[in-house]
Amino acid sequence: MSKALPKRSENYSEWYNEIVKRADLAENSAVRGCMVIKPYGFAIWEKMQRALDDMFKATGHQNAYFPLFVPKSFLEKEEEHAEGFAKECAVVTHYRLKDNPDGGLMVDPNAKLEEELIIRPTSEAVIWNTYRNWIQSWRDLPLLINQWCNIVRWEMRTRLFLRTAEFLWQEGHTAHATEAEAIEETERMLGVYATFAEKWIGLPVLQGVKSPNERFAGALETYCIEAMMQDGKALQAGTSHFLGQNFAKAFDVKFVNKENQQEYAWATSWGVSTRLMGALIMAHSDDQGLVLPPKLAPIQVVIIPIYRNPEDLAAITARVMPLLDELRAAGVSVKFDDNDSQRSGWKFAEYELKGVPVRLAIGTRDLENGTVEVARRDTLSKESRPFDGISSYIVGLLDDIQENIFQRALAFREENTHSVDTWEQFKEQIERGGFILAHWDGTAETEEKIKEETKATIRCIPLNATEEAGSCVYTGNPSNKRVVFARAY
Amino acid sequence: MSKALPKRSENYSEWYNEIVKRADLAENSAVRGCMVIKPYGFAIWEKMQRALDDMFKATGHQNAYFPLFVPKSFLEKEEEHAEGFAKECAVVTHYRLKDNPDGGLMVDPNAKLEEELIIRPTSEAVIWNTYRNWIQSWRDLPLLINQWCNIVRWEMRTRLFLRTAEFLWQEGHTAHATEAEAIEETERMLGVYATFAEKWIGLPVLQGVKSPNERFAGALETYCIEAMMQDGKALQAGTSHFLGQNFAKAFDVKFVNKENQQEYAWATSWGVSTRLMGALIMAHSDDQGLVLPPKLAPIQVVIIPIYRNPEDLAAITARVMPLLDELRAAGVSVKFDDNDSQRSGWKFAEYELKGVPVRLAIGTRDLENGTVEVARRDTLSKESRPFDGISSYIVGLLDDIQENIFQRALAFREENTHSVDTWEQFKEQIERGGFILAHWDGTAETEEKIKEETKATIRCIPLNATEEAGSCVYTGNPSNKRVVFARAY
Repeated sequence: MSKALPKRSENYSEWYNEIVKRADLAENSAVRGCMVIKPYGFAIWEKMQRALDDMFKATGHQNAYFPLFVPKSFLEKEEEHAEGFAKECAVVTHYRLKDNPDGGLMVDPNAKLEEELIIRPTSEAVIWNTYRNWIQSWRDLPLLINQWCNIVRWEMRTRLFLRTAEFLWQEGHTAHATEAEAIEETERMLGVYATFAEKWIGLPVLQGVKSPNERFAGALETYCIEAMMQDGKALQAGTSHFLGQNFAKAFDVKFVNKENQQEYAWATSWGVSTRLMGALIMAHSDDQGLVLPPKLAPIQVVIIPIYRNPEDLAAITARVMPLLDELRAAGVSVKFDDNDSQRSGWKFAEYELKGVPVRLAIGTRDLENGTVEVARRDTLSKESRPFDGISSYIVGLLDDIQENIFQRALAFREENTHSVDTWEQFKEQIERGGFILAHWDGTAETEEKIKEETKATIRCIPLNATEEAGSCVYTGNPSNKRVVFARAY
Repeated sequence: MSKALPKRSENYSEWYNEIVKRADLAENSAVRGCMVIKPYGFAIWEKMQRALDDMFKATGHQNAYFPLFVPKSFLEKEEEHAEGFAKECAVVTHYRLKDNPDGGLMVDPNAKLEEELIIRPTSEAVIWNTYRNWIQSWRDLPLLINQWCNIVRWEMRTRLFLRTAEFLWQEGHTAHATEAEAIEETERMLGVYATFAEKWIGLPVLQGVKSPNERFAGALETYCIEAMMQDGKALQAGTSHFLGQNFAKAFDVKFVNKENQQEYAWATSWGVSTRLMGALIMAHSDDQGLVLPPKLAPIQVVIIPIYRNPEDLAAITARVMPLLDELRAAGVSVKFDDNDSQRSGWKFAEYELKGVPVRLAIGTRDLENGTVEVARRDTLSKESRPFDGISSYIVGLLDDIQENIFQRALAFREENTHSVDTWEQFKEQIERGGFILAHWDGTAETEEKIKEETKATIRCIPLNATEEAGSCVYTGNPSNKRVVFARAY
């Protein structure tokens, strides 16, 4: 607590790491690339889970659970999928340890698996193998299933929440009788993600589709939501894939349609992960620490008594108790921090660091005056307000803060989004960060060259892009809409 | 649906398997010993999770998440623990696949891990290694953390829910400043489990401690809740371990106590798993299928319209709609099954099979008479009741059913619990199943011999056992209380 946080403007990367650490969100574990999500960080993730889960259920999905292990032969069945994930797989080869004659334990060579098991890097393979037995007729469709679980992808360069070898996520896997229904589902879930990002995280997102280069391995189309972080870099916050009949064909999932003919089922999959924690942190936080959207804050309001002696504390406590009840009755998560072992100045800094949206401070003077000091975390402003009626004021204030941090992030994105028409401008602009709207000739080759020269990738082709005749910023070849370029996490 | 279920009395094991399958709770996956938990089964598990999680939080615990992987060297650190789990470990040895020249994929021999990673069979090692950095002072204690996650133990003989290679569970891991506080916590969480089992699952349990033979590997004392299934066998439904300072010593977790001295922290761990699903199924179900306690039923009430033509259905629907609203407002999960493609007889059987606690049937005659047919799943009884006021009747009925299935299971346990004083009686009684209360001389050797001769194990030494002078049922040596013997799952 003693040392100040690094400033965003000076060392963005270090600023991020320090917030994750000092706000008690997560830490690196002793296992390479795997994180420990600490209670305060996990409480935020739980709130995300609950909100998303409610939205999934409201759109007709049910949860289920499939095995952690994917037999190697399953992964091989869809070729592109296999290629996409083969290089980052944790592989189980044995099922027993035994005493090492030199002490300790060793892998028992007699307990080698006949077929290696991959820790799921995603579950299309194991789930579509299961769906073969669940889908016989159009009456079994649509099959709308979601799973909350852990995932392992052996990334070489990891970063807390943003890219870790093990992470937590949800993965929806749906099967449909027609192509149109599957595409509709893919788009519906993208919409759910966009709504969650904007209404809960306060994170404005672009909705779009990926270029073929950036598609999920095995998908015909990958939809995504893309957000801008405060360093101007893009972060892919969620994806929704239209898988066509690829997995149905790979795993032989056929159904009898209404015309009494055998047909392969149409698939989607969609996921968001603990990466959203990284997005939340980087989108809103400031040089004082974490800034949490009220809807996801484990503690929405903290009340700190300012007192010199036990009598003062008793008087303040008596005043505060009914307020705690009122706030809790209104569904507000509130903490009264009367811990005597820390000074109030320390507490102020600590709750700022942890992003608690509203802080109330109340001292003996306030008791006399019938006032309370209200501080907002998002603006760091404070004011003295009448104690009477404060609970309804706070309920409204939490909504204001939720809206304000969204609007602030939106304004930031708008300020840092530029339409660019020449390659010189593109190269200059990309150095300043932000999103670039530019024409692209639609070829993988051009995309690759732009990436090589500038480290910028096509984040998405926005769903709401307007048709506009233009020429590719790199090749000059014709193009009919602008796509979004940025450097990305 | 066509074939009747096997009868409990004829083939208990097959009856269990068929209920799991036909009620759509779970199925075996293509991965040896791993199950797929299907949506209906998972919905029950989610209700268990929610209730338990609320109880953990109400007793001051917070959730967190620790890595899936345990480095082999961590597992080795606590010797008994290592021995207990070494023989059933899934081991990750490589982190990459590559193209096989013969087609498909193969493990990349260049991607061998320096140190093997074990898929967590339980997380004491990885968590206590983390706690070393979290605990410095008595002010950091108690540390009360829980984790919901998947676990892998490479069991050779598996059974859906009861014993699977991968399962879902929660594991609490707490650290305390004193031995007394740690024991208090161990007992508190056993109490939480007992309350959950009895009030939510409707499962009467004995609370006790395990004999040293049956202790968790690394524990000083293992507390457990033990339940009786309908075949008279025992099922361990949850355990709570007092770990002493074993893990603190193995991972060097010291704190400065109030006397300013370095001391090792005191530990507990406690867990319940998807095994509880097996307990739920086997405790209450009957020859018609699953019987669910209302508090854990995904659908508590199903309403089935009995009609011959669309006009009848419309009239019934109009009558039923306000009832659906009333029930939902009262917190009841209700489904109106107006699916036209299945006959009502089929529906009756299907919801019976799935254990829906209350079924309402309403036909045109009922509309005329202002009645509705109410069927209870637990007793399979039905009666015609006035439609007016039916929602409050149902709310009370659900409570009655919850209580009734508990009382029925309790009566069954009482009927099948016998005090036995001679070895001859013991051998006869154990063949008839149930719990045997018998004196035991307290030695591992006697326990082992009894197990060899009868397959009965000591399920627990009940916490509430009365002091009573006696002689060991096997050796005749003195004993001061009776312990519980049974054959077990």
